[in-house]
Amino acid sequence: MTDEHATIRRRTEIIIFGTETGPGRTFDVLLILAILMSVGAVMLDSMASIHQVHGTLLRNLELIFTLLFTVEYVVRIWCVQNRLSYIFSFWGVIDFLSLLPTYLAILIPETAPLLIIRLLRVMRTFRVLRLFELMNEFNDLVGVLRSTSRSILVFFSLVFVIIVVFASALYVVEGPEHGFTSIPLSIYWAVVTITTVGYGDITPQTPLGKTFASMGMLIGYSILAVPTAIVTTKLWERMNRRNSQFLQWNCPVCAKTGHALDACFCKHCGAELDVPAEIRSANGSEESK
Amino acid sequence: MTDEHATIRRRTEIIIFGTETGPGRTFDVLLILAILMSVGAVMLDSMASIHQVHGTLLRNLELIFTLLFTVEYVVRIWCVQNRLSYIFSFWGVIDFLSLLPTYLAILIPETAPLLIIRLLRVMRTFRVLRLFELMNEFNDLVGVLRSTSRSILVFFSLVFVIIVVFASALYVVEGPEHGFTSIPLSIYWAVVTITTVGYGDITPQTPLGKTFASMGMLIGYSILAVPTAIVTTKLWERMNRRNSQFLQWNCPVCAKTGHALDACFCKHCGAELDVPAEIRSANGSEESK
Amino acid sequence: MTDEHATIRRRTEIIIFGTETGPGRTFDVLLILAILMSVGAVMLDSMASIHQVHGTLLRNLELIFTLLFTVEYVVRIWCVQNRLSYIFSFWGVIDFLSLLPTYLAILIPETAPLLIIRLLRVMRTFRVLRLFELMNEFNDLVGVLRSTSRSILVFFSLVFVIIVVFASALYVVEGPEHGFTSIPLSIYWAVVTITTVGYGDITPQTPLGKTFASMGMLIGYSILAVPTAIVTTKLWERMNRRNSQFLQWNCPVCAKTGHALDACFCKHCGAELDVPAEIRSANGSEESK
Amino acid sequence: MTDEHATIRRRTEIIIFGTETGPGRTFDVLLILAILMSVGAVMLDSMASIHQVHGTLLRNLELIFTLLFTVEYVVRIWCVQNRLSYIFSFWGVIDFLSLLPTYLAILIPETAPLLIIRLLRVMRTFRVLRLFELMNEFNDLVGVLRSTSRSILVFFSLVFVIIVVFASALYVVEGPEHGFTSIPLSIYWAVVTITTVGYGDITPQTPLGKTFASMGMLIGYSILAVPTAIVTTKLWERMNRRNSQFLQWNCPVCAKTGHALDACFCKHCGAELDVPAEIRSANGSEESK
Repeated sequence: MTDEHATIRRRTEIIIFGTETGPGRTFDVLLILAILMSVGAVMLDSMASIHQVHGTLLRNLELIFTLLFTVEYVVRIWCVQNRLSYIFSFWGVIDFLSLLPTYLAILIPETAPLLIIRLLRVMRTFRVLRLFELMNEFNDLVGVLRSTSRSILVFFSLVFVIIVVFASALYVVEGPEHGFTSIPLSIYWAVVTITTVGYGDITPQTPLGKTFASMGMLIGYSILAVPTAIVTTKLWERMNRRNSQFLQWNCPVCAKTGHALDACFCKHCGAELDVPAEIRSANGSEESK
Repeated sequence: MTDEHATIRRRTEIIIFGTETGPGRTFDVLLILAILMSVGAVMLDSMASIHQVHGTLLRNLELIFTLLFTVEYVVRIWCVQNRLSYIFSFWGVIDFLSLLPTYLAILIPETAPLLIIRLLRVMRTFRVLRLFELMNEFNDLVGVLRSTSRSILVFFSLVFVIIVVFASALYVVEGPEHGFTSIPLSIYWAVVTITTVGYGDITPQTPLGKTFASMGMLIGYSILAVPTAIVTTKLWERMNRRNSQFLQWNCPVCAKTGHALDACFCKHCGAELDVPAEIRSANGSEESK
Repeated sequence: MTDEHATIRRRTEIIIFGTETGPGRTFDVLLILAILMSVGAVMLDSMASIHQVHGTLLRNLELIFTLLFTVEYVVRIWCVQNRLSYIFSFWGVIDFLSLLPTYLAILIPETAPLLIIRLLRVMRTFRVLRLFELMNEFNDLVGVLRSTSRSILVFFSLVFVIIVVFASALYVVEGPEHGFTSIPLSIYWAVVTITTVGYGDITPQTPLGKTFASMGMLIGYSILAVPTAIVTTKLWERMNRRNSQFLQWNCPVCAKTGHALDACFCKHCGAELDVPAEIRSANGSEESK
Repeated sequence: MTDEHATIRRRTEIIIFGTETGPGRTFDVLLILAILMSVGAVMLDSMASIHQVHGTLLRNLELIFTLLFTVEYVVRIWCVQNRLSYIFSFWGVIDFLSLLPTYLAILIPETAPLLIIRLLRVMRTFRVLRLFELMNEFNDLVGVLRSTSRSILVFFSLVFVIIVVFASALYVVEGPEHGFTSIPLSIYWAVVTITTVGYGDITPQTPLGKTFASMGMLIGYSILAVPTAIVTTKLWERMNRRNSQFLQWNCPVCAKTGHALDACFCKHCGAELDVPAEIRSANGSEESK
């Protein structure tokens, strides 16, 4: 009995968490469809004209989706092997947070604004990446962003100082009568300008203000090169390391190096390389900072 | 008789589809001029002031161009060697779609809005690239875009989540009274902001909304680095591969490939590679896709 | 007498065209100051408030500067060795065009709008690059832009098709009642959007128009990666070729290659390399397309 | 006595200028908190609604912070080993300038606008980089920006000419009746457009103006590739040089340098290099600035 129970649990886990089997793929496709429909319902419900006509229908749909996702969440906890690790994992928290607001809004109507948190469900569609075998690309992207985060942080502190300097300059030059009513608002203007968004809701009016603003724009326009350079260099290093790492092992006969990672014989003299297993495995996975 | 017919057909094909011969180049130049004139006529006709004065002239011009292109289309089908493959090829469909709306609008006047499809003719001017021998560059560009499409897709799903998160935040913070009347509209605002377009038709009004928007702008400004890094790295790899690729020669003993350009012995089994001189020199200049 | 005349002419040429000698540098500094002052006078004169008060003063200043530049132009023609080659060179034409409008406006007052051409004088300040020994950087920049021009041209034809497609879509969806009064105006809107400038003078009003516009923005935002990738790759190649070109010459003793361009002895066995002069010079200047 | 004094002074220096010791880190954390609070107070005070209610409180807070920073400044001068070098260093001047305005405003009330200079304190938070060991990243960033400054300068002179050309064209085409009231204002418009900021406060109205503006946008959009390419290439070179530099060892015979890392013989005179093992291994990991 217990054994049978364990087998069912294991099978459920493979279907719900895995994508290798047929039922697993089917379950994931259905789940993503349900997520997209529930997100679509939340979006449609936010449009006044649709809310007036179909408000009750959308509300009921939402309740049904929430019940479905609750069942799914409970089954996930039941079938997963390490429960605590799932519940407190990033995806576990997202799964929980996208359920909570609906129940909260029923119990305490004052928490209705929190219903927006349901949109976090959209992050769950990242599972679709696994379906289309895009996880490698995703990990590459996240890995590069993580390895550049220190440099990007320093870049942002530089940008922050530039923003404060231009915001202060425009606040003094233009002043409240031209829309720069406070330094925080000037900082908002500076962010809009340096990032080249340029809403145009606040613009410099005086010749001096326009001169300073032009300088800020040219700086913002060209320092964009810095994060691009950082990310490109890191990505290139990452790609390069993967492709063209040489074997750290000299030929025992002619003592030359420069062999490919999968070489078995010296490409210079034809002698067998006879690489020790630990060298070979170290070369494959090694990642120097 | 049949033989003569085949010769004429073959010659017509060389003129219409080729650019190597004098008449072929002349035909292409004339065709591109006709396409540009017909596109120009469609554009001018869309301007109210010109339509009132020269409407009938432009309408007749359009009919003449359509007849010409119809003749060209029929001749293409007649002279091409593999008819079905041309008709259902990308360019064949474009050729057909840019003819259809004019006839449809004559038969069924209600389909007039479809006349805009005639502008697809502009894509036919890509033939001009072949004239100026820019096809290599075009293939390079398309090849790089295709090879990066998976990574770019993952990048877009990341951008999509960032957009939904900021759209939801601003919808809750600003609300309908400041122009954020629904979540889909907030998403439109978030796209306008994250891509640094910044129309300014919807802007945050509250201090908290401005703070969130500023964060969104800075994120949008810096994640632009990611697609640039991906495309640059791929293009660099592509250029590099062309220069420093592998030897196109299998080991005569173990039939494995992947040897360095200067290898004399198989790195897998140690046998002498014995590469013919013409292969070695070809490898230096050759270009694998 | 003629000999003395030739000496003076040669000395004048060194002063006016050269920057190596003291007087040559002094002349260039004075010339650039005069150019900047004359450009500044043209700009100030365009401001209504200053024109009313100092109009006559600025007009007289302009006449004096034009006379000075005319003298300079005549002296340049007199002292240069190959007159025709200077007059029809890029810089010679610029020198002439920045003089012409002032005389024209005096003779034929109707040509006053052409006075703006005087601003081409600003291009003459590029000589300042020679003064600060920035010509190498300038040539690098121009060389990279020239070597990428074919790829950039193809990129622009791709962007052009994208712009026409989105312009047509928005023209049909939004129509004249929302500001998209003609296809050429829609194309202007599409350029403003795809390049992420985003003035906001024409914006989509309907939900469908906003959806299409959002797609256009995301595409415009990400295809910016393409020209960056092209220019980066070309610049990298250029820099790389300059630094790490190896000598195309094998060691006569051990027949190994991979020597630095300035090597005299084999780095592997210590034998003298004995490189023929023509190989060495070919290696230094060679630049394969 | 003097000896004890010297010891205290040395210890104070280690606490105030260093981050290696516990008290040193505590002091830096407290200092940054005080800086952020004083900057926050200045910003809040600039908001009219807060100034009316809490104006006096914020003014007193500012006085307390200024006194604290004055004490800190005096102690820094007292304990530092080379006083003049600190006072006239970049950071010493920033420290002084962020104190001055408060005292000036008390003595001469007319200098109140200079109070904005206090915001330079925000630059002092760069010390936080030292705390989190981000100084390497900062030096990398500054080093790359410095090494590219010559090329970027040339790029900007190119951009400047493009801006003047488009500004002049639009000034002539649009004229004062469409908002292009003077050439300096047209230049402001051109900067807003070429950098893709696009406020929309001044926009072309005529078809010809819109055509020219579209060309300017496309050029601005694509020449952004140039600074990115320059910075990326330099950063890549910098990263690369760290990995694959030259041997730091002179030839013992001809004393020349520039040998490859794996060289055994001098490439200039053929003498054996005889590199000590510790130099060779150090070269592998070492990092030259």
